[in-house]
Amino acid sequence: MRAFVTGAAGFIGSTLVDKLLEQGHAVVGYDNLATGRREFIANALRSSKFEFIEADVLDATCLNENVRGAEIVFHLSANADVRFGIEHPRKDLDQNTIATFNVLEAMRTNGVKTIAFSSTGSVYGETEVIPTPEDAPFPMQTSLYGASKLAGEGLIAAYAEGFGMRGFIFRFVSILGERYTHGHVFDFVQKLAADPSTLHILGNGLQRKSYLHVDDCVEAMLTAVERADAKINIFNLGTDEYCEVKESARWIADRLGLAPRFTYAGGDRGWIGDVPFIFLDTRRIRALGWQPKRSIRQSVELTVDWLKANEWVFSLRGAH
Amino acid sequence: MRAFVTGAAGFIGSTLVDKLLEQGHAVVGYDNLATGRREFIANALRSSKFEFIEADVLDATCLNENVRGAEIVFHLSANADVRFGIEHPRKDLDQNTIATFNVLEAMRTNGVKTIAFSSTGSVYGETEVIPTPEDAPFPMQTSLYGASKLAGEGLIAAYAEGFGMRGFIFRFVSILGERYTHGHVFDFVQKLAADPSTLHILGNGLQRKSYLHVDDCVEAMLTAVERADAKINIFNLGTDEYCEVKESARWIADRLGLAPRFTYAGGDRGWIGDVPFIFLDTRRIRALGWQPKRSIRQSVELTVDWLKANEWVFSLRGAH
Repeated sequence: MRAFVTGAAGFIGSTLVDKLLEQGHAVVGYDNLATGRREFIANALRSSKFEFIEADVLDATCLNENVRGAEIVFHLSANADVRFGIEHPRKDLDQNTIATFNVLEAMRTNGVKTIAFSSTGSVYGETEVIPTPEDAPFPMQTSLYGASKLAGEGLIAAYAEGFGMRGFIFRFVSILGERYTHGHVFDFVQKLAADPSTLHILGNGLQRKSYLHVDDCVEAMLTAVERADAKINIFNLGTDEYCEVKESARWIADRLGLAPRFTYAGGDRGWIGDVPFIFLDTRRIRALGWQPKRSIRQSVELTVDWLKANEWVFSLRGAH
Repeated sequence: MRAFVTGAAGFIGSTLVDKLLEQGHAVVGYDNLATGRREFIANALRSSKFEFIEADVLDATCLNENVRGAEIVFHLSANADVRFGIEHPRKDLDQNTIATFNVLEAMRTNGVKTIAFSSTGSVYGETEVIPTPEDAPFPMQTSLYGASKLAGEGLIAAYAEGFGMRGFIFRFVSILGERYTHGHVFDFVQKLAADPSTLHILGNGLQRKSYLHVDDCVEAMLTAVERADAKINIFNLGTDEYCEVKESARWIADRLGLAPRFTYAGGDRGWIGDVPFIFLDTRRIRALGWQPKRSIRQSVELTVDWLKANEWVFSLRGAH
């Protein structure tokens, strides 16, 4: 199989690239290295089956040229920054919606028929159905990030219908693990490095969130691509658990050997558009034979370990 | 009230403008006259309370300048061309999704807090729940038009959450009535003018569709804006009926005094992405006290009468 991966030097993208190469596939990786890291594809770059294109998904011409010949596109590049959307509303539109359009157009132009897309559980907004199945009631968006991913999902479905493509849409919970460079574990580890005595938590700490390890995530995607064959295949990806934010804060502190005092910003959500309870129904992907190998706690701990061993990531441009 | 109306010279937009002026409101109409017609705002232009800006919603600077001072934005400009989406995939993205983003940004910049948006029943795709309520199961898009409108809805909800706006989202069935310039009644009247003996119908004629008269549509929008007060207010707009395509073809022929032979292209849908059965549950808008004054048959007949009296519309650029 010849795979084209956008966001190939990112957290999930680079993990997928490694896995695809390990399975013997040829991979073209595409990344503008704005948040992706050359370090993450260091292994891949040593493979003769890997080709890397440093370019932007908003450069439609370059995308068109490089998608040519692929059998499948894994479209993982994104502005994955759900929290800061309202500070730069155009970013989600450009990097998620318009970029997805560009990818689909490049595929159409080149006759590439299969796309796998990293969507998000955020598309469910503040749904009342928890755990949330893929066919939950028509959701109301609460973030520009969710809205931009929903738009991407819609484009993929319409292209599949209009141009005979096949789509795999994955609605992720938050992903943890090696190469993780933003999110609450990152923030907490960074804050505790600066002040080990106190940890300030956004919201009241009672927000309930779900997480999945990146290896489990990549395995789920590859399982779906191999075993599902509808025109549009939508899968929630997550574990069968959730945890409170203050609970994961405790695991992080414990793993670092610290006992900070927790302080809380208060309120039932961490920021505008935050969803206080995210828990996805994952029976559909489990029915294909996949199951996660790591618990949320293990995933948090593995992430802490990796961040401790890779403190350079805290100095990355755009990291937070 | 000072209202800003995009697509002000279009079919629904100009009808809304007339109604707003009749109610004594000040109106700024914005239209690039690509498919809108100066004829449709001839009355409005005689009012001292109406100001017309001939410009494009993709011109963000011009939009920003003119939205200033509005209390409510009715965003009706769109590529409303559901059938030909796959011939020019970028059009729906530009004119529906990005245009809606531009309108929201102009509102944010100018502190305008209320938007009313013409979405579409097409966002439900081929739902299995019929009549379809607003909280139907998470739908799968089947057209670029539906996908682009869904994206617009998502943007509005995210802006409402992020920036303290209020949104009214109207999911229309097909609208009929005076100033109607595209759609199946237009096509059938045009075909019968060319050849009164035969009418060729796309699909098998058994597609079941819903229609609403433009005056009923505008009245529903204004009722909702006046009486609903959630952050995001979503309403299906339609009648409590549907009809088969061949049934409406018969009404059209009868109204024209013709008895053509019907021929059928065959298949259960008229084109790629066509939805064979559209029927919306409108209990939510009815609960506000609104109800349509015209049946589907009456709306079809009034549309035929208007087209006969205004044959110039058949020579419009882009009309079909």
